[in-house]
Amino acid sequence: MKFATALHNAKQVIAVLNEENNSILPLNDAEEKKSGRRPFPDDMIQCIEMGSDFIEGAKEVAIWAKENSDCFVNLEEVQLIAPIPKPKKNIFCVGKNYEEHAIEMGSKDDIPEHVMVFTKAPTTVIGPKETIPLHSDVTEQLDYEGELCVVIGKKGKAIPQDKALEYVFGYTILNDITARDLQSRHKQFFIGKSLDGSGPLGPVIVEKSAIPDPNNLDISTKVNGEVRQSSNTKHFIFPIEEVISVLSAGMTLEPGDLIATGTPAGVGKGYKPARFLRDGDVIEIEVEGIGVLHNTVGKD
Amino acid sequence: MKFATALHNAKQVIAVLNEENNSILPLNDAEEKKSGRRPFPDDMIQCIEMGSDFIEGAKEVAIWAKENSDCFVNLEEVQLIAPIPKPKKNIFCVGKNYEEHAIEMGSKDDIPEHVMVFTKAPTTVIGPKETIPLHSDVTEQLDYEGELCVVIGKKGKAIPQDKALEYVFGYTILNDITARDLQSRHKQFFIGKSLDGSGPLGPVIVEKSAIPDPNNLDISTKVNGEVRQSSNTKHFIFPIEEVISVLSAGMTLEPGDLIATGTPAGVGKGYKPARFLRDGDVIEIEVEGIGVLHNTVGKD
Repeated sequence: MKFATALHNAKQVIAVLNEENNSILPLNDAEEKKSGRRPFPDDMIQCIEMGSDFIEGAKEVAIWAKENSDCFVNLEEVQLIAPIPKPKKNIFCVGKNYEEHAIEMGSKDDIPEHVMVFTKAPTTVIGPKETIPLHSDVTEQLDYEGELCVVIGKKGKAIPQDKALEYVFGYTILNDITARDLQSRHKQFFIGKSLDGSGPLGPVIVEKSAIPDPNNLDISTKVNGEVRQSSNTKHFIFPIEEVISVLSAGMTLEPGDLIATGTPAGVGKGYKPARFLRDGDVIEIEVEGIGVLHNTVGKD
Repeated sequence: MKFATALHNAKQVIAVLNEENNSILPLNDAEEKKSGRRPFPDDMIQCIEMGSDFIEGAKEVAIWAKENSDCFVNLEEVQLIAPIPKPKKNIFCVGKNYEEHAIEMGSKDDIPEHVMVFTKAPTTVIGPKETIPLHSDVTEQLDYEGELCVVIGKKGKAIPQDKALEYVFGYTILNDITARDLQSRHKQFFIGKSLDGSGPLGPVIVEKSAIPDPNNLDISTKVNGEVRQSSNTKHFIFPIEEVISVLSAGMTLEPGDLIATGTPAGVGKGYKPARFLRDGDVIEIEVEGIGVLHNTVGKD
């Protein structure tokens, strides 16, 4: 199942995307028609906190709705927003998790020996189709980074690698927009990674049962139709299980936590000369099994 | 005024500390006796979001309560918890903001030219008197860092330095507990800064009107009664106005955001040989005009 947060009739709803990816099923509206109840919170993190009750409940009403197609709403009539529009903490981001990207950012010496994690503020999050601000007043080097993003499903600490995926709710896409000049000027990555709107997220969260192996997914980024990044998550230096295990060793992970897994080679800074983002650039990030996250860069 | 979050009769209350620092005035209980109303949220961030209505309302009921001393509750009958027990995003932390500390961490080359910011997860926050977990399974180099912490009062972006203090609600103390081995192993500071319970916060938030110049406050840290850090915030490399201006240049600050301003020289790692924290160590951080943040290190 693909879960989405959408604005429908000016209200935020939690929905399931249909198989043709052209309409959504608002879960509470459908369940109300089916049973008279509205059991689903209108907030994705609260839904995730329900655990298997949410997934089973959604599955049941989605099966029922196949025979009740008037429950579906055409995608054109709604606005998909970020599946988690306001995370409860910063987004955890793995730095340099693909060898070729580490090298393009410097040299072989930049390939990390240990998981490197920085964060992006919750105020960075925007949804699919929303405009990425150019921030020309503070940066001249805005760059894209297509990434697979893990959504944590349940609370856990000191999670061993062989149990790590049990703590995952599902997967989405993050565009880890980065101001390269700020990133290097301020040493620690945070400031260059946390400009408002620099965290396009979505378009949906795919429940983990639909992704048999998250460490083997094609990932690509196009800018204005030109392929800039093209790789597969099998090239992770640190696979998802290891990242979850390292992060949770001394820190409790919680439902709705977001872990961006790093970006492959082909970022703007990696080109000679560098190809930073410009007003009007269209960025499409595709991850196998999830979909396409599509945003345009625009003036602030 | 000094604002506290406390557990009183098993409920979370927002309170004002009395001038003798030995009892608190739970604001809603007092206001109810005064006017029959309970206008204050039981959550500090929501109170801060009320803006001047909160400060004026609290001031009024505190003045009234001076003649109604039965409204006060002895500190021994309540538990002060972190004034903001669950921040809505990671704590922003300025790295190396005192020259002597930058030098003790390496050399003069470590004195930053630009504000350096990393973050601590919200799950790090614990309150005064709570036990700091030793985390001996993941670190052998747990260290203390006494810091003045700014609490943001209103939403703002691109805040100029000369207006920065208008966006401050008040000030508190953070012990930026750090696992030095994790900090260096993982390059970016986040992992070494975000162990559970590594962010003791409090004991109170002092409203900014009580702190005429936050860039001129004595700050000290004692471990088991021995003074380890002793400085004054006038030695900041980047004063609070500059930190707020740089952080907000491209990122919106929000009410309840916490900005730890960096630690002076005298951390455990700075000693030769290093003096890391041990089971049972008592840490007291004092900042002029705020109070003492007191915690003990304990087994997990």
